[in-house]
Amino acid sequence: MQLLKDTILKEGLVLSDQVLKVDSFLNHQIQPHLMLEIGKAFSRRFEGEAVTKILTLESSGIAPSVMAGLVMNVPVVFARKQKSLTLKDDLWTEQVYSFTKQTSNEVAVSKRFLAPSDRVLIIDDFLAHGEAALGMARIVELAGAAVAGIGIVIEKSFQQGAEKIKQQGYRVESLARVASLENGQVRFIETESQEGVSC
Amino acid sequence: MQLLKDTILKEGLVLSDQVLKVDSFLNHQIQPHLMLEIGKAFSRRFEGEAVTKILTLESSGIAPSVMAGLVMNVPVVFARKQKSLTLKDDLWTEQVYSFTKQTSNEVAVSKRFLAPSDRVLIIDDFLAHGEAALGMARIVELAGAAVAGIGIVIEKSFQQGAEKIKQQGYRVESLARVASLENGQVRFIETESQEGVSC
Repeated sequence: MQLLKDTILKEGLVLSDQVLKVDSFLNHQIQPHLMLEIGKAFSRRFEGEAVTKILTLESSGIAPSVMAGLVMNVPVVFARKQKSLTLKDDLWTEQVYSFTKQTSNEVAVSKRFLAPSDRVLIIDDFLAHGEAALGMARIVELAGAAVAGIGIVIEKSFQQGAEKIKQQGYRVESLARVASLENGQVRFIETESQEGVSC
Repeated sequence: MQLLKDTILKEGLVLSDQVLKVDSFLNHQIQPHLMLEIGKAFSRRFEGEAVTKILTLESSGIAPSVMAGLVMNVPVVFARKQKSLTLKDDLWTEQVYSFTKQTSNEVAVSKRFLAPSDRVLIIDDFLAHGEAALGMARIVELAGAAVAGIGIVIEKSFQQGAEKIKQQGYRVESLARVASLENGQVRFIETESQEGVSC
């Protein structure tokens, strides 16, 4: 998605070979019009998947997801990160390990908002090691629903998340795929088949 | 805002005289089209305020704010709740007390995203005791920016938040004002002057 890649090049801050900071438009300050274009791009990519619901994770997944939900006309559910609770009869929960913070978070979704008839598009802002996306996929499976696909705003393709997701049989579509952050430079993977014609 | 009040009556769960649960459309599952209408309503109510930026608090404030930002064509910043950090030179921080959880949270905004020239619309999902809204207002003042107003999706008018905000000289506009949750019933304050003509 060209507008997204242009924005990353213009505003993204490369903090190390591993860390790209995009807090001026995606995960602290949000540019709503860019989010709408991101929502349209996800809608095009998952057009044939009969998506009935979007699942994301608080907080940075919410803005792109709510725009995708607007364009696709489906509800959005955001999984909550929480301290482990003893009483969780009405929740689907999974442990998600964060490599950045080196801690495990419990993420939770109310059982009322995932039905076996749902075809769920999972959306997240970043894909690195794949822990968050796969945690959400496990929650969808626990609910007996189907994972329609996994949509990622920025994929760090030099980490193994995308590969792990594909090995588990899920379709992943990333709107910007970062090949490397070496020498303070963002380099993208340029594959037009992945990028799609209309994005 | 009639659509919002209708949705509260249809889907809101009154858990006690104090607690209204709206997790099917606002703060766990989100209905994107309703959020867009909420964004339009905020845009109409603050039309003359020359708003340059929206400030909200993760996570439930993000969806209505990003839609308001889309309609008003301004960026959205969401304050992060965080554990107190020692190193915070580049952050504006404030303590916000939660009556529900009976704990204090530190909320933080990067100094890069609030400028003295900004006129900031503060948006939040709920207004009860006013702690979150006033914490965000203090951050805007710390940054030397102006509070253009405070927009609330659901005001619990039987608690003292709205009154406290007005006493401090801020304009507050709430799209639904709940007079009481007694006997398991949601009763609204019906004041057309507050509601505005076009909402």
